Amino acid sequence: MKLASIRSSSRDGQLVVVSRDLTKAVAVPQIAPTMQAALDDWSNIAPELVQVAAALEQGAVSGSFAFDPSNAMAPLPRAYHWVDGSAYVNHVELVRKARGAQMPESFWTDPLVYQGGSDDFLGARQDVPVPSEEFGIDLEGEVAIVTDDVPMGTKRDAAFQHIKLIMLVNDWSLRNLIPGELAKGFGFYQSKPATAFSPVAVTPDELGDAWSEGRVHLPLVVHINGQPFGKPNAGVDMTFDFARLVEHITLTRNARAGTVLGSGTISNYDRSLGSACIAERRTLEQIEQGKPVTSFLKFGDSVRIEMFDGEGRSIFGAIEQKVVRA
Amino acid sequence: MKLASIRSSSRDGQLVVVSRDLTKAVAVPQIAPTMQAALDDWSNIAPELVQVAAALEQGAVSGSFAFDPSNAMAPLPRAYHWVDGSAYVNHVELVRKARGAQMPESFWTDPLVYQGGSDDFLGARQDVPVPSEEFGIDLEGEVAIVTDDVPMGTKRDAAFQHIKLIMLVNDWSLRNLIPGELAKGFGFYQSKPATAFSPVAVTPDELGDAWSEGRVHLPLVVHINGQPFGKPNAGVDMTFDFARLVEHITLTRNARAGTVLGSGTISNYDRSLGSACIAERRTLEQIEQGKPVTSFLKFGDSVRIEMFDGEGRSIFGAIEQKVVRA
Repeated sequence: MKLASIRSSSRDGQLVVVSRDLTKAVAVPQIAPTMQAALDDWSNIAPELVQVAAALEQGAVSGSFAFDPSNAMAPLPRAYHWVDGSAYVNHVELVRKARGAQMPESFWTDPLVYQGGSDDFLGARQDVPVPSEEFGIDLEGEVAIVTDDVPMGTKRDAAFQHIKLIMLVNDWSLRNLIPGELAKGFGFYQSKPATAFSPVAVTPDELGDAWSEGRVHLPLVVHINGQPFGKPNAGVDMTFDFARLVEHITLTRNARAGTVLGSGTISNYDRSLGSACIAERRTLEQIEQGKPVTSFLKFGDSVRIEMFDGEGRSIFGAIEQKVVRA
Repeated sequence: MKLASIRSSSRDGQLVVVSRDLTKAVAVPQIAPTMQAALDDWSNIAPELVQVAAALEQGAVSGSFAFDPSNAMAPLPRAYHWVDGSAYVNHVELVRKARGAQMPESFWTDPLVYQGGSDDFLGARQDVPVPSEEFGIDLEGEVAIVTDDVPMGTKRDAAFQHIKLIMLVNDWSLRNLIPGELAKGFGFYQSKPATAFSPVAVTPDELGDAWSEGRVHLPLVVHINGQPFGKPNAGVDMTFDFARLVEHITLTRNARAGTVLGSGTISNYDRSLGSACIAERRTLEQIEQGKPVTSFLKFGDSVRIEMFDGEGRSIFGAIEQKVVRA
């Protein structure tokens, strides 16, 4: 099943069921008005949505219309909880290596996450407003899951059942604000502007065999200004799977319905696959050529992030955004 | 005007208007079903709520009932944005001094904030579940504001008008998890369990002259297990006022309606007033006696946080919670 939130008079948009090929959609106000409402009562509501999705595939629903990704808000236009992992530890190791710092051994066994802002998510085709190019504008291509209610103290084995939806993320970062902000000791804030998500969120079964052991085993295809930039495989070198990350985030808290949990920037040891952020490419240039060569983004630059199934069909629709002056 | 969210069949509770003396309440489903709904359209909805509040004071509404703080959820039972400042810089300086570290001069001019979890706020009388006493359970007594939509790039002067509600906070902290977590570089996560709020949120005019220049000029009265622990004045030694903090949090982002912004632990240079967290008292003991003496909290311990007007009347109702094993 594929779901989206399309623009409406509500801040939360209108929940729609989207066809597998992303061409058609149908609103389901009689089942749930919004994505959050569906997640708040997922065990009762999901089966009804699944029925609509099946009927939509068969052309057996009335009121369907063409699905337009540019009319999609983030699947959750605003969320109560956005926590982003840094599960590709080789990426962390690489970045530290470039600045001559050792990474603690514990990073291989103890997940690293940060709490992100979730009141103002961007839709997949919305412009990305930034006050200044001097801030070092960068993408971060990721996968994220959405959970139902996960009680405090949930272990990895019990966490899988709480993973209800999967989507793509562009976790926009302002690289030149990060060192100063992290030096203050309390994590990211100004250095993380609004995060963007794919047009649709999908249930794990939509991924077939590609969803396995809490990982999405498919390449994330990244283009900048229409040029291929990277296609690292999200299932490779992901040190902590999503279920392990759910265990981590519920050690001392409940994670409530609609929790969005990101993988962190996807990164593979196989450097021939490119990167899912400019910072990593610059780090590799630093190591290999003695200095970074690739620039961060300028106003007018565009980024496309997408993931395809084995037959080359887009699973989530594309995140395709342009950076603009705020 | 005083507002609360009381328990209902909804995760977001039911919005009620509460009398100035905190004894009576009336539901307002015909105006707004929830606190978030009111904040989403505050300019239209607040005037209607103000009329109800006036009628409630005059005993001129039907359907009012006794207000029971133990039936109150957090004013926003879940929020899209919780960002907590550390505006009492003398507190930061003190903590650093105790561990022999210099605080950068920039801390006096550049606010420090962290992004907190907002999907699972605690009501004022809810127990505080923690998995282990070994985590170092501590309170943090604070004041918080709630905003309407604040656009990116809002300066301090323009920020005042966006401050719509004020409430008290207990920003529970797990002190023994903090050093390890902050050493990882991405800020707090596991070390910050669910945050608790006062039974009611009030509009700034309810504070009269005590609300001035973006600060609340009243003592925050803290008791632990019924014994006085501290009564630092929230208006004293607050290096960054709330309007300045709003400017800080909107440099690169919009802050959307229902943003909850905390002051950080209230702390005065006048040490005779005590502290609003155990960590600060332990730091003072370390400096004065060579070692900390006061223990962190144990299961069964209770904390009370309250603020009174010039006539000794409770403004927000009390946060009064017991720590329990999760």
